[in-house]
Amino acid sequence: MPQATRAIVCHDTLANGGWKLEDVLVREPREGELLVEMVGSGICHTDLISGGAPKGMAPGAFYPRVLGHEGSGYVKSAGPGVTVAKPGDAVLLSYDSCQNCQVCAWKRGSYCPEFFPLNFTGEYPVFSTKGHGENQEPNVSGRYFGQSSFANLSIVSQNSVVNVSSLVKSKQELQFFSPLGCGIQTGSGTVINVVKAGPEDIITIIGLGGVGLSAIAAAGKIAKCKKVIGIDKVKSRLDLAFEFGATDVIDGDNLPEGKTLDDVVKALSDGIGPTITIDTTGVPALIKAGFAFTRRGGRYVQVGTSPPDFQMEIPWFEFMMSGKQVLGAVEGQAKPSEYVPQMIQWYRDGKFPIDKMMKTFPVDKYHEGIEEMHKGVTIKPVIAWS
Amino acid sequence: MPQATRAIVCHDTLANGGWKLEDVLVREPREGELLVEMVGSGICHTDLISGGAPKGMAPGAFYPRVLGHEGSGYVKSAGPGVTVAKPGDAVLLSYDSCQNCQVCAWKRGSYCPEFFPLNFTGEYPVFSTKGHGENQEPNVSGRYFGQSSFANLSIVSQNSVVNVSSLVKSKQELQFFSPLGCGIQTGSGTVINVVKAGPEDIITIIGLGGVGLSAIAAAGKIAKCKKVIGIDKVKSRLDLAFEFGATDVIDGDNLPEGKTLDDVVKALSDGIGPTITIDTTGVPALIKAGFAFTRRGGRYVQVGTSPPDFQMEIPWFEFMMSGKQVLGAVEGQAKPSEYVPQMIQWYRDGKFPIDKMMKTFPVDKYHEGIEEMHKGVTIKPVIAWS
Repeated sequence: MPQATRAIVCHDTLANGGWKLEDVLVREPREGELLVEMVGSGICHTDLISGGAPKGMAPGAFYPRVLGHEGSGYVKSAGPGVTVAKPGDAVLLSYDSCQNCQVCAWKRGSYCPEFFPLNFTGEYPVFSTKGHGENQEPNVSGRYFGQSSFANLSIVSQNSVVNVSSLVKSKQELQFFSPLGCGIQTGSGTVINVVKAGPEDIITIIGLGGVGLSAIAAAGKIAKCKKVIGIDKVKSRLDLAFEFGATDVIDGDNLPEGKTLDDVVKALSDGIGPTITIDTTGVPALIKAGFAFTRRGGRYVQVGTSPPDFQMEIPWFEFMMSGKQVLGAVEGQAKPSEYVPQMIQWYRDGKFPIDKMMKTFPVDKYHEGIEEMHKGVTIKPVIAWS
Repeated sequence: MPQATRAIVCHDTLANGGWKLEDVLVREPREGELLVEMVGSGICHTDLISGGAPKGMAPGAFYPRVLGHEGSGYVKSAGPGVTVAKPGDAVLLSYDSCQNCQVCAWKRGSYCPEFFPLNFTGEYPVFSTKGHGENQEPNVSGRYFGQSSFANLSIVSQNSVVNVSSLVKSKQELQFFSPLGCGIQTGSGTVINVVKAGPEDIITIIGLGGVGLSAIAAAGKIAKCKKVIGIDKVKSRLDLAFEFGATDVIDGDNLPEGKTLDDVVKALSDGIGPTITIDTTGVPALIKAGFAFTRRGGRYVQVGTSPPDFQMEIPWFEFMMSGKQVLGAVEGQAKPSEYVPQMIQWYRDGKFPIDKMMKTFPVDKYHEGIEEMHKGVTIKPVIAWS
């Protein structure tokens, strides 16, 4: 039986006023799915990208749908074949992967060839709007990142689930931890799993949103890099970066007279650039600048989403001679069932000050969370479902 | 006092018949230089590239000069400030680096910003042809890779020198080991130092010359990769690859009916491509094919010299989502003073069958060595100076 719930349904882009909090029905879980009652859901720029693209403009730009991909909650029921959790279990949600291919078998689920359709572009009928016949196939797509956590009750793919029943002490904690499975995992996992940074590294992080600050914390407080340099142009974020472990910050809008970003970064990194650069912005001009200022023999990692048509042109012989390394990375190359517990432990050990970036908003004030995120006042808004 | 010796002087390209073995004078060593009497010098494709470019066609395409960059010999005398070796010491020669910058301080001498001028394009008056006034500055350039080992007596930069007096038992051994410092170091060092391959890896090596076969040996016999796949189109090299530790070989000119290289490589690598691909050819079509067949989350390494104007266009968002990593590498990222002794030990332990790729030619038959290398009959010709 479909159940009544509430969801933020995107009927059109946010800019067009197409996001509406409304009453919907959610269908029963099917094979490999769970019905989860959300308690928290982080808001991420990726939601705004997916729910900001005019219909048909890009793969996955379709409506109506329910977004949200940093959810946590309690299992209400489970469909056939589900083994990861049972009703009543506390779960933290992450990205979906097929868990059926050789890439997933190689523990690289975030590079699963099905990642894009499973998380972004696939259409899964899950919710029904008011007036849509109960016996018809639902008319609103769900399972965004296998979860669509911008709904109080939602259908979740079991491959998106991390069972945290034994790790989380209260409902409040479960809500607080909701964003761990995407942005925070992405930023910190890139430092820990992808580049395996260490005390000898000088690392530069471009963009200090939730992903960037999580990378700063991992580099500064966990990997204990020699220097941790943050770049942004929002003063509040630059200030906050020090609390996350940055040793230096650069305000891209206020460079010293006559100096380029390249000059300023190199002056902080032995004159030759950082050993590691991570771009979390996806802005082509910053990508090119970051790739250029990375030292010879150093590593550049792409984490931020660049425009779909952006082609990077690399003079190949010069690139080889430079000994640079260029890495693509998604979701911090983390296997969430192993990495989420690790992040919770870092938080408990005082090495991962994620509380400093979060702020909770009741669901009917979710717009305020988005506004504060845009202004840089709040880094990571979390929707509280109750 | 200049000393009389013999050298292969390149007055013009090899194709134009410009390489001549002739009597020359070599000047005294200056600050930081040694005079070395060569006993062996490997011939490498890089010599043929440098001595094959018509004058002025590319940076470093100048004549007359003496090439040769896989030399070994005994020190005859040393200029001021030389500490690496003294007269009588056995030395093995490798690439030159400034040892004065932060990149060298970071033990990445092969990515030294001065690498190109020091090894390829710099003009250093070292030799004088017959009839050139003894009191004039010499008229033939030396110090190719800091050594110009295609001369019986040559001037060597101390930063190119590895002192192997305590490691090498005889003059014959010293001659035999001469190519360790470039092609063999490049191939094996890429596997050991750059990608740090291990038993879980499936590795594909494109091109089975000296660099490629050294990579095969490192992957098969030292890193003990699960699968070691060699690609070439010369049957004798494909056969030899098995002796170096290949588990599979692919003849690019004889693919099974209806199959592409991509199909054949993937069929050997879990259906999704190798975890590591190393291109030693620099051929754009093979570079693109190798980058494409590397598995999602896998690593592609550029080691072969691509055409100077080749630009690689990478669709950036798709690259990020693939989780692939692209690495430039030079000289196997080796610090020769540490890595050459390591290679000698592997050879003594029976893990590094470099004897199977080498053949010695008296200096007046060096043309035969080049011909056999071109035909694939000999992988690594070594000029014997006596």
